[in-house]
Amino acid sequence: MLELIGTLVFAYSGLVVARRKEMDFIGSYSAAFLSAFGGGTLRDLLLDRHPLYWIAHPEQLVIVFVVCVIGSLLLRHMPIRVDGAVLQLADALGLGVFSAAGAALALQSGAPALPAILMGVLTATAGGVLRDVICAEVPQVFRRRSQLYVTCTFTGAALLVVLRIFGVEADAAAAACVVATVLFRLAAIRFDLQLPF
Amino acid sequence: MLELIGTLVFAYSGLVVARRKEMDFIGSYSAAFLSAFGGGTLRDLLLDRHPLYWIAHPEQLVIVFVVCVIGSLLLRHMPIRVDGAVLQLADALGLGVFSAAGAALALQSGAPALPAILMGVLTATAGGVLRDVICAEVPQVFRRRSQLYVTCTFTGAALLVVLRIFGVEADAAAAACVVATVLFRLAAIRFDLQLPF
Amino acid sequence: MLELIGTLVFAYSGLVVARRKEMDFIGSYSAAFLSAFGGGTLRDLLLDRHPLYWIAHPEQLVIVFVVCVIGSLLLRHMPIRVDGAVLQLADALGLGVFSAAGAALALQSGAPALPAILMGVLTATAGGVLRDVICAEVPQVFRRRSQLYVTCTFTGAALLVVLRIFGVEADAAAAACVVATVLFRLAAIRFDLQLPF
Repeated sequence: MLELIGTLVFAYSGLVVARRKEMDFIGSYSAAFLSAFGGGTLRDLLLDRHPLYWIAHPEQLVIVFVVCVIGSLLLRHMPIRVDGAVLQLADALGLGVFSAAGAALALQSGAPALPAILMGVLTATAGGVLRDVICAEVPQVFRRRSQLYVTCTFTGAALLVVLRIFGVEADAAAAACVVATVLFRLAAIRFDLQLPF
Repeated sequence: MLELIGTLVFAYSGLVVARRKEMDFIGSYSAAFLSAFGGGTLRDLLLDRHPLYWIAHPEQLVIVFVVCVIGSLLLRHMPIRVDGAVLQLADALGLGVFSAAGAALALQSGAPALPAILMGVLTATAGGVLRDVICAEVPQVFRRRSQLYVTCTFTGAALLVVLRIFGVEADAAAAACVVATVLFRLAAIRFDLQLPF
Repeated sequence: MLELIGTLVFAYSGLVVARRKEMDFIGSYSAAFLSAFGGGTLRDLLLDRHPLYWIAHPEQLVIVFVVCVIGSLLLRHMPIRVDGAVLQLADALGLGVFSAAGAALALQSGAPALPAILMGVLTATAGGVLRDVICAEVPQVFRRRSQLYVTCTFTGAALLVVLRIFGVEADAAAAACVVATVLFRLAAIRFDLQLPF
């Protein structure tokens, strides 16, 4: 359920960036697909996990397609945007869920602590980076004066890995990761937290 | 034979884009290589098929090299371009062949119908996208007001998958895919077909 | 030891490009990471070698982190750059080492001569290309009027492969590759060697 929310929001973010770049429907679907599955696919390739998520779960491809059709119609006919706060909460949720999934799967594959944390960060953020790359933009999360984003997923993934090392069971550690990531991210938006350099 | 035509044309397209971007011979070869093998390589990585095509068939690397040398000389000394219609037909052929190869190999690897179609699309188009990404351009196939391209490969790959599901044998299904993709693509160019949105 | 120098210099080059692009610390670390490990990671994925280098050696991630912290402080508070000649020598060393590692591992994985040479080139240069791609720039090594760079790694890797074919043992062939690459690269800088086209 949480993963679905993450997929939906990330796909929608791909759509929005693609439309801003004047891409057509094919480009929009590609950007949405990369946003939603890019991070997880890269993680699976790096960890040598097969078959890939969207090959094993083709219904996810349909979901992203539906997001693109509905989203495209909305963006054309409704200048009114969906309430920003709702989107930001959903995006933070997606961030937390993907971060937890990435770190947990990496640990499961036998990766040491630090690479496992990195894999959580990568799962949560690489989709957005790939989206920006095919749109020929400097990735959003790397730009200065942006509010903490990668740092939040890092904190969440690190919490999960530490908890797992101390013997906390998988579900509890994942839940802690999601909660920590979401709270940290919302705080970063609310209080405009940025990296000092 | 058909695959060779596809490789040659895709390599040449990489060369042309690289030269337009003022790249030197190394950049041109890289762009040609990515155009010709990028889609197939990505497909093989996603399906976990090893060794990769150009590792198993090193003579292909030589072919792309020869295309680059001859093509570079042609582009410098002959402002006269090769007839556009011939190139478009060859490109459409490449599109069809790669689309058929991608979808067929995905089915063979046990992928469900929808991911298999996507793999056909990806095999045919990812090379061009990677070429445009290293040239720091918004990928051509995603730009608005471009004639149907991805849609043609999708149609061809979908036809192949449906025919295979209904028990048509591999070669016939592949042939149908190539013919459908080529005809659709040529029609798109001739009648300036575009996505409505 | 040589590999460590390569990693350090390549990471630093990522940092410098990221800072020029006004990226924050996260972006800088990502660019440094891609510069240092991008080539090797791509090589391992293409050759299907797992686990990846930085998953098996997490201390390398810490080293790149330290490079970024110290490098960021240096770049901010010291307009004085590290002596260019030292950096160029170190970069040439990194080029040689990565080129040798890539070609040797490819041969070991059973790749034929030509793909093995290409894998050496790719290991040495793909990190810089990926760095430039996430910075939304046309990759440096592809630009015209740049001094020979890829050509040097190609020469080094080709030398290694040829020596191995003639039965020279691994360490000697690797040493020859490093020396040839470094000398060729330094000569290219000194005498401003460029591709004629």
